[in-house]
Amino acid sequence: MKNTLGTSVTVTLFGESHGREIGAVLSGMAPGVAVDEATIAAALARRRPTVGTGTARREPDAFRVVSGVFHGKTTGAPLCIVIENSDVRDGDYEAWRGLARPGHADYAAYMKYHGFEDYRGGGQFSGRMTAPLVAVGAVAEAALFAKGILLGTHVAEVGGVFDRAFGDFAADFKTLLTAPLGMLDEKAAEKAKAVIAAAADEGDSVGGVLETAVTGLPAGVGEPFFDSVESVLSHGLFSIPAVKGVAFGAGFDFAGMKGSEANDPWRVVNGRPVTLTNKSGGVTGGITNGMPLMFRTVVKPTPSIYKTQQTIDFFKGENADLRLQGRHDPAVVHRARPVADAVTALVLCDLLALRYGTDYLGSAT
Amino acid sequence: MKNTLGTSVTVTLFGESHGREIGAVLSGMAPGVAVDEATIAAALARRRPTVGTGTARREPDAFRVVSGVFHGKTTGAPLCIVIENSDVRDGDYEAWRGLARPGHADYAAYMKYHGFEDYRGGGQFSGRMTAPLVAVGAVAEAALFAKGILLGTHVAEVGGVFDRAFGDFAADFKTLLTAPLGMLDEKAAEKAKAVIAAAADEGDSVGGVLETAVTGLPAGVGEPFFDSVESVLSHGLFSIPAVKGVAFGAGFDFAGMKGSEANDPWRVVNGRPVTLTNKSGGVTGGITNGMPLMFRTVVKPTPSIYKTQQTIDFFKGENADLRLQGRHDPAVVHRARPVADAVTALVLCDLLALRYGTDYLGSAT
Amino acid sequence: MKNTLGTSVTVTLFGESHGREIGAVLSGMAPGVAVDEATIAAALARRRPTVGTGTARREPDAFRVVSGVFHGKTTGAPLCIVIENSDVRDGDYEAWRGLARPGHADYAAYMKYHGFEDYRGGGQFSGRMTAPLVAVGAVAEAALFAKGILLGTHVAEVGGVFDRAFGDFAADFKTLLTAPLGMLDEKAAEKAKAVIAAAADEGDSVGGVLETAVTGLPAGVGEPFFDSVESVLSHGLFSIPAVKGVAFGAGFDFAGMKGSEANDPWRVVNGRPVTLTNKSGGVTGGITNGMPLMFRTVVKPTPSIYKTQQTIDFFKGENADLRLQGRHDPAVVHRARPVADAVTALVLCDLLALRYGTDYLGSAT
Amino acid sequence: MKNTLGTSVTVTLFGESHGREIGAVLSGMAPGVAVDEATIAAALARRRPTVGTGTARREPDAFRVVSGVFHGKTTGAPLCIVIENSDVRDGDYEAWRGLARPGHADYAAYMKYHGFEDYRGGGQFSGRMTAPLVAVGAVAEAALFAKGILLGTHVAEVGGVFDRAFGDFAADFKTLLTAPLGMLDEKAAEKAKAVIAAAADEGDSVGGVLETAVTGLPAGVGEPFFDSVESVLSHGLFSIPAVKGVAFGAGFDFAGMKGSEANDPWRVVNGRPVTLTNKSGGVTGGITNGMPLMFRTVVKPTPSIYKTQQTIDFFKGENADLRLQGRHDPAVVHRARPVADAVTALVLCDLLALRYGTDYLGSAT
Repeated sequence: MKNTLGTSVTVTLFGESHGREIGAVLSGMAPGVAVDEATIAAALARRRPTVGTGTARREPDAFRVVSGVFHGKTTGAPLCIVIENSDVRDGDYEAWRGLARPGHADYAAYMKYHGFEDYRGGGQFSGRMTAPLVAVGAVAEAALFAKGILLGTHVAEVGGVFDRAFGDFAADFKTLLTAPLGMLDEKAAEKAKAVIAAAADEGDSVGGVLETAVTGLPAGVGEPFFDSVESVLSHGLFSIPAVKGVAFGAGFDFAGMKGSEANDPWRVVNGRPVTLTNKSGGVTGGITNGMPLMFRTVVKPTPSIYKTQQTIDFFKGENADLRLQGRHDPAVVHRARPVADAVTALVLCDLLALRYGTDYLGSAT
Repeated sequence: MKNTLGTSVTVTLFGESHGREIGAVLSGMAPGVAVDEATIAAALARRRPTVGTGTARREPDAFRVVSGVFHGKTTGAPLCIVIENSDVRDGDYEAWRGLARPGHADYAAYMKYHGFEDYRGGGQFSGRMTAPLVAVGAVAEAALFAKGILLGTHVAEVGGVFDRAFGDFAADFKTLLTAPLGMLDEKAAEKAKAVIAAAADEGDSVGGVLETAVTGLPAGVGEPFFDSVESVLSHGLFSIPAVKGVAFGAGFDFAGMKGSEANDPWRVVNGRPVTLTNKSGGVTGGITNGMPLMFRTVVKPTPSIYKTQQTIDFFKGENADLRLQGRHDPAVVHRARPVADAVTALVLCDLLALRYGTDYLGSAT
Repeated sequence: MKNTLGTSVTVTLFGESHGREIGAVLSGMAPGVAVDEATIAAALARRRPTVGTGTARREPDAFRVVSGVFHGKTTGAPLCIVIENSDVRDGDYEAWRGLARPGHADYAAYMKYHGFEDYRGGGQFSGRMTAPLVAVGAVAEAALFAKGILLGTHVAEVGGVFDRAFGDFAADFKTLLTAPLGMLDEKAAEKAKAVIAAAADEGDSVGGVLETAVTGLPAGVGEPFFDSVESVLSHGLFSIPAVKGVAFGAGFDFAGMKGSEANDPWRVVNGRPVTLTNKSGGVTGGITNGMPLMFRTVVKPTPSIYKTQQTIDFFKGENADLRLQGRHDPAVVHRARPVADAVTALVLCDLLALRYGTDYLGSAT
Repeated sequence: MKNTLGTSVTVTLFGESHGREIGAVLSGMAPGVAVDEATIAAALARRRPTVGTGTARREPDAFRVVSGVFHGKTTGAPLCIVIENSDVRDGDYEAWRGLARPGHADYAAYMKYHGFEDYRGGGQFSGRMTAPLVAVGAVAEAALFAKGILLGTHVAEVGGVFDRAFGDFAADFKTLLTAPLGMLDEKAAEKAKAVIAAAADEGDSVGGVLETAVTGLPAGVGEPFFDSVESVLSHGLFSIPAVKGVAFGAGFDFAGMKGSEANDPWRVVNGRPVTLTNKSGGVTGGITNGMPLMFRTVVKPTPSIYKTQQTIDFFKGENADLRLQGRHDPAVVHRARPVADAVTALVLCDLLALRYGTDYLGSAT
């Protein structure tokens, strides 16, 4: 499915950066999930650029729930949310037509769409397309929350500045709802802001790492092989623009570990099986084991920078220099944070609905 | 699809570690692809444990092509390969029934399958299940090869020993067909063998990192969002037992980079657009850009170790100590190498068939 | 996929009968297909009730193409069309809440959605949901047309009145673009109108049969088993409200035939293989054989009738009598006609894109 | 999915008519379903030709359950059943190579597979491929049976002879387990045998209609649109070779009905909502309504007949006459009966697992 993610609970996107409207269709969500427009608005707000560290494009993200909600709850029918694009400037992009912006999809898109693509603002490749994903993701997060499944993502690293690790999950998730840069450690956030501002001053940008945690997931969800929890989550996460790596639990650190360090010892604690460490990130053999689901996602630096770059004009087949103008984020990792939350929530709703049936997430059970 | 990977070209697995036979069904492969049993046998041989560094279980991997091949070529009908399990010892596993081996799926599987699962040798969670995947993957690799698309995976790191980077791809791919530990640098391989042997002596195991490269892929394959090349490849790669992370191009190193370091400059070289670096790993905006596809996969240390480990008996709900016996690999990263090749080839065949049609990989075009 | 049809070219629906907007997302369509809003409008007009034989609900079907079209052609990105619902009357439906309208989904929906469903006007079960399907179907039909693949559906039978068979396909398809009741024989149409009017006068309704033909399809499309052309087409056609049967070629008449009557003899005519009859309806072994694709679809009588009917109140669990009011069609078979065209076009675009690649239907090939 | 049917519970086929083995993989079935080899053998026996009315090809259908069953119950892992082909005669088919047998897929297959197809005995188009489908279908039927969901298919019509309608479902289903021609009325069966024998004597064949009923299905299963119960069932049923039409409830008779005749009146009977008639066949709005699921499937006459037929040689592009030899059934409708049961059971297991979760059909709930 090229443009639809999921099996039982699915999401379909539509829109382009500079179209009049963009949107997402969430299908298969259980009936009876409370939908609060303020929650959706708050999720969208977390995705918007913070003044001083972000693009000058200002989108109020005015949205409307077009279908699937009746009397404040999901009906079980497809739930469509449409968001208006208001701050659209066609002229910005015509001048670069044919020039492959390094780190962007321009040339790849041209080879796929043969010049018919809507190139304005990256078209459907734009980070703007994550706004409707965040909107429907907020509905999925609310459904999980009502089942005691909580989740959150922090900026574990940005521009060489590291956040502290997750501690008390519930408290940290709450903190992250309003943490400006999505970091748990306020001092690290201050430092990160300075680093981002410095990169912006140089006309450059920085990358970072997101860490996501989910608590309250039942054990026994996922499949041993092709639909392992890692498989389906990474499938979703890699669709987020700029994500280039996904790793669960100890992730790439496993390479330097011994088995005796990598294995999580099991103990019965308060009558419940737990592992004393969580190197596995809550998944063994592709299946949840009841421990918190933990994974990291790397977000590359914004490719739109203001330094002069070498490129080609793929219309003319010749070399060219490119110096971008316009309005761009010197970092997107913190803006990708609610997108990671949204994708995680959507994928987990799908896995849970497959495992426990279509009513599981609704209020009828 | 829980047990089937792909959309146009698909693979379905069956079998368990200690069943009589295991197999895979490859569907949707183009008609007219030459199928050479020696090539399949060679791929299976690369997956078998190397004497001295691997499990004592000895499987000759006797296989038969049950369907889908006629007069030495694919017919276009489902191609099934069945492999016999010969070295099966039921008794080994009964003693541990109910004990959650740390790092293994035992408890997760119990919560999913409620005790009905075939627990012998890990059942369908066993690395043994990758043998039929490698077998049908060899057919996919041959189909790609005939289109000028070459691929290979080396052990970039194992037990703290690092291989050299890919140089001349074609030559390196050839080297890897017979390199004993799947490393390009022979001295590194010697060192790695010693490290693995030392871990084995301690009753422990080591992890590692695989790096895969693919050359000759056309630009313009993949989707901007949910079926990005990264999404579909990671979906497949994370189904390989013990894989806990997947990263494309510069991967997690992007976190510490600036945009000016991360972006790949474009130039016209010999009349063809290329990037001077390949930090993107051949994919931008989810779509191939004509540069080599490059990604890394982390493989955790074999969880089966001989040290005494803390665990629980999930039947009794009480703590227990576990000291494994039996026959296990002190490292599996090199054995996962042909599996990564196979998954990569299968996923790419699927993407290419979707993009260019079902005849593209066959000899009729 | 509960709410998305197709594999390479897909359609996703959203909306309810009495929501503000309804829509459809067409994904995977080739880039470069000309999109003419007048063509879409004409298809929607064919779906609207004809004055005198249809519901009093009047919907102008004002639509907007929200995404996926740039400079008048498809971009290859998801194409979303949104249609406004203007003639919405909430009050009509509250009175019947809890009463299972015979022939409708009320009780089934209640058992699925537990009372959270939007019951106004049938919610997502409404025939109104076929409007966006027709709109995106018009884009698919245009793409096929540009490849020389023509299609059309006539009302072969309604209320006991029979239309003539297809003759000159191209001419008949043209006639059907404006034929008021979708019949090829004008006299039959007059008679049918009278029959429908008489049923309406009695507060009753009538059923009918649609026959669809497609010319110009290449041979060799479809799959031998689970994705036979019949399988995927019927999957789509049975999603049209009120459709209860689908049959290809001679269909249910095969039951009374001998093999010697059922088999289509092959001959070379003008250097091209053709069958002298077309009992198979253009499909043998699940695969197109180059002859016109022909199938029939039965549409049950509109269940909304004005006669008093026996029913239950499923809230109270007791018997009740029901006498519907409101505005309903005495026949929907002719309104289902453009929906059959749309579903046929969408499914064929999917099959062709799978077979020949994603560029096949676009202007880049 | 070209070669895999279903979403949560799936089936994948492999093999060809004249390969050494054929098989099916059933994935996603709940753990804990009792698997009785005698039940599988009995289902396969119902598919085998009855002496005197069927092909001379004699296949004992020796099968083995290769995976997915442990201690007599499903494990939840993929369940593969392999059947040996024993009565294979290569030479029979070489002579006709290039001749398009009327009513068969030869020409369509050639246009799809370009001559690489295994043409012996119809290859993967052969009715032989339904044997493994019946085998895994028997497991699905057993799972449904344990939940009180019963099903059966009778030959409602063959060669112009009509069976009586279903009466007491449970008793009739039992009768059908051993009814030689799959008819409920023994006298009709006698008459049918004579008709089939007469057709055989003429070197001809006859078609027929199957009627399937399912009792005990909960209300609220299926989707309003693209995955309506009718959509997913017809998708499966049309993959059965020779099936050309599928109709639910009153089916094509709806065309001649008024709404007042077509609607099923609801009443509360024994505290439970029922409809007094079942014209809808147990499905309204695409969703089960708690009444027996009823549908009819038309099976065309066996295309392999012994009369001289007009055809073409598609290698040479010229006309030819064809007089088939070999061993063929003069009727296949009764042999398609257990296949319809199998497909129905598999599709319903999938729908139920999607609706109520993956444990629903197992013994753990």
